[in-house]
Amino acid sequence: MSEILVVGSLAYDTISTPNGRVDRTLGGSANYFSLAASLYSKVRVVGVVGEDYEDKDFELLSSRSVDTAGLQKQKGKTFHWEGKYQGDMNEAITLATDLNVFEHFNPELPASYKDSSYVFLANIHPELQLRVLEQIDRPKIVGSDTMNFWIQSQLGSLKKVLTKVDVVLINEGEAKMLSGASNAISAAESILAMGPKAVVIKRGEYGFVMYSKEGYFILPAFPIAKVVDPTGAGDTFAGAFFGYLAKGDSDLSLKSLKEACVHGCLMASFTVQGFGLDSLRDVEWADVQQRFQDYGRVISFA
Amino acid sequence: MSEILVVGSLAYDTISTPNGRVDRTLGGSANYFSLAASLYSKVRVVGVVGEDYEDKDFELLSSRSVDTAGLQKQKGKTFHWEGKYQGDMNEAITLATDLNVFEHFNPELPASYKDSSYVFLANIHPELQLRVLEQIDRPKIVGSDTMNFWIQSQLGSLKKVLTKVDVVLINEGEAKMLSGASNAISAAESILAMGPKAVVIKRGEYGFVMYSKEGYFILPAFPIAKVVDPTGAGDTFAGAFFGYLAKGDSDLSLKSLKEACVHGCLMASFTVQGFGLDSLRDVEWADVQQRFQDYGRVISFA
Repeated sequence: MSEILVVGSLAYDTISTPNGRVDRTLGGSANYFSLAASLYSKVRVVGVVGEDYEDKDFELLSSRSVDTAGLQKQKGKTFHWEGKYQGDMNEAITLATDLNVFEHFNPELPASYKDSSYVFLANIHPELQLRVLEQIDRPKIVGSDTMNFWIQSQLGSLKKVLTKVDVVLINEGEAKMLSGASNAISAAESILAMGPKAVVIKRGEYGFVMYSKEGYFILPAFPIAKVVDPTGAGDTFAGAFFGYLAKGDSDLSLKSLKEACVHGCLMASFTVQGFGLDSLRDVEWADVQQRFQDYGRVISFA
Repeated sequence: MSEILVVGSLAYDTISTPNGRVDRTLGGSANYFSLAASLYSKVRVVGVVGEDYEDKDFELLSSRSVDTAGLQKQKGKTFHWEGKYQGDMNEAITLATDLNVFEHFNPELPASYKDSSYVFLANIHPELQLRVLEQIDRPKIVGSDTMNFWIQSQLGSLKKVLTKVDVVLINEGEAKMLSGASNAISAAESILAMGPKAVVIKRGEYGFVMYSKEGYFILPAFPIAKVVDPTGAGDTFAGAFFGYLAKGDSDLSLKSLKEACVHGCLMASFTVQGFGLDSLRDVEWADVQQRFQDYGRVISFA
């Protein structure tokens, strides 16, 4: 088992969906990623919170043995995002983004983090993603995510990141935007040509497309009749994906990539069943195993 | 092997996609269905064409041993549809619908058709679908499709059809419209409660969801980097689905349903690779077998 370093946001989110509304619930890519990954492996987190960040929210990570030495607490308020989902809930509509302490976030890795083998650069400014990479000795596998805002405003830096990472995990709309392609298959081919060894396109209720030089791997999401809140599903996917790889000290063989994708996909299916982290925080290993069996029945036909 | 009766449209289509444009190319649900199904089983077709319908277009079906005794040639012009696709091409934008002889179509089954075991009622007026069913002695398995227009204007008749068919094949947008559900999983559950034994929701590039009382079966489409024209993919799916069932005289066991869905999905992947029927008409059994093998590599991870 290897340790995973994740850098990303810790946030309070206000979320409205057709199923209700929650105010200032715990969120942020680093929290979703860490909770998911910590079911598989040891996690080290890098991020920044404000003075309002509650002790119980630190303790949630500690209770899962997540190393929080890389969390800075700064003067000011924690990053706050407000968004809503409508209709099929495949896309969030952002209502407010209060960066707060996140605005001047400068990731500084504790010395104890510098030997991390697995590294995930969640959706932050591409220049910060590069700054994190510079501080790590010899990572074995580096992954990254990004978002439309950086594709539009920081394409140069983002493309530099893509030449330095092994695997990109990105949602379908952003994959099309980044590549200019009209479908996920063509987008995956284009993004692979930008540098990474593998591309995982997250498709929400439609599952994922994974593409590496060895071939495609495509599966649907686990069927959930009532999606309560899709927030964090993509970060959960990345967390279980990296958790699975780190647990087995795995490389990016097609077999490892496929298994990691299935873990990512299934873990994300828990996240969407509750608001914020409500559902994910209660997931135990037995739940994952059960969902694996159920999923097998949904997709197998031989 | 049993014989399949299909009732649907025979048309000339004018289609624009980001890849080009074709004028008055052969189309219509009955043509797509028949070409796909005839790779598996014997097909009997019921429909109407105008005086402009070309001999070579009749001969295309005859060359595949499709029984065309149920095709009426009437005074006037053949049904003409004009549409375009943009962006991800998941939805057609209708530019013109010239019903022509299709406007007063009244399906009359030749006596030789009345013993058909497998029946597919493609997207036509629900009252006509019912009229076809009344003329068949004892069908073993009946399937139907429909469209937004009938859901909005003929919901009563359509719901009556749903109580009389065994399997509904419907696209995702129309499944949500019919059920009021916000996702395909929930829509499938609702539609199953309307009467049929199984529901197949066609999701374009995202594949399909099949739901019967025995459970879900969900898979993605075969990856096609360049979708030339999606017209007819849904009817192709239905054709191979019914063709597969009829070939083995199959019932609607979960195993049969799953296998039929995979055949439907793979055959549809050929259709989208060319304009109109250009690609489907050249598909041979060896191509289907090859795609089966390739698909296995795309979706398997054990």
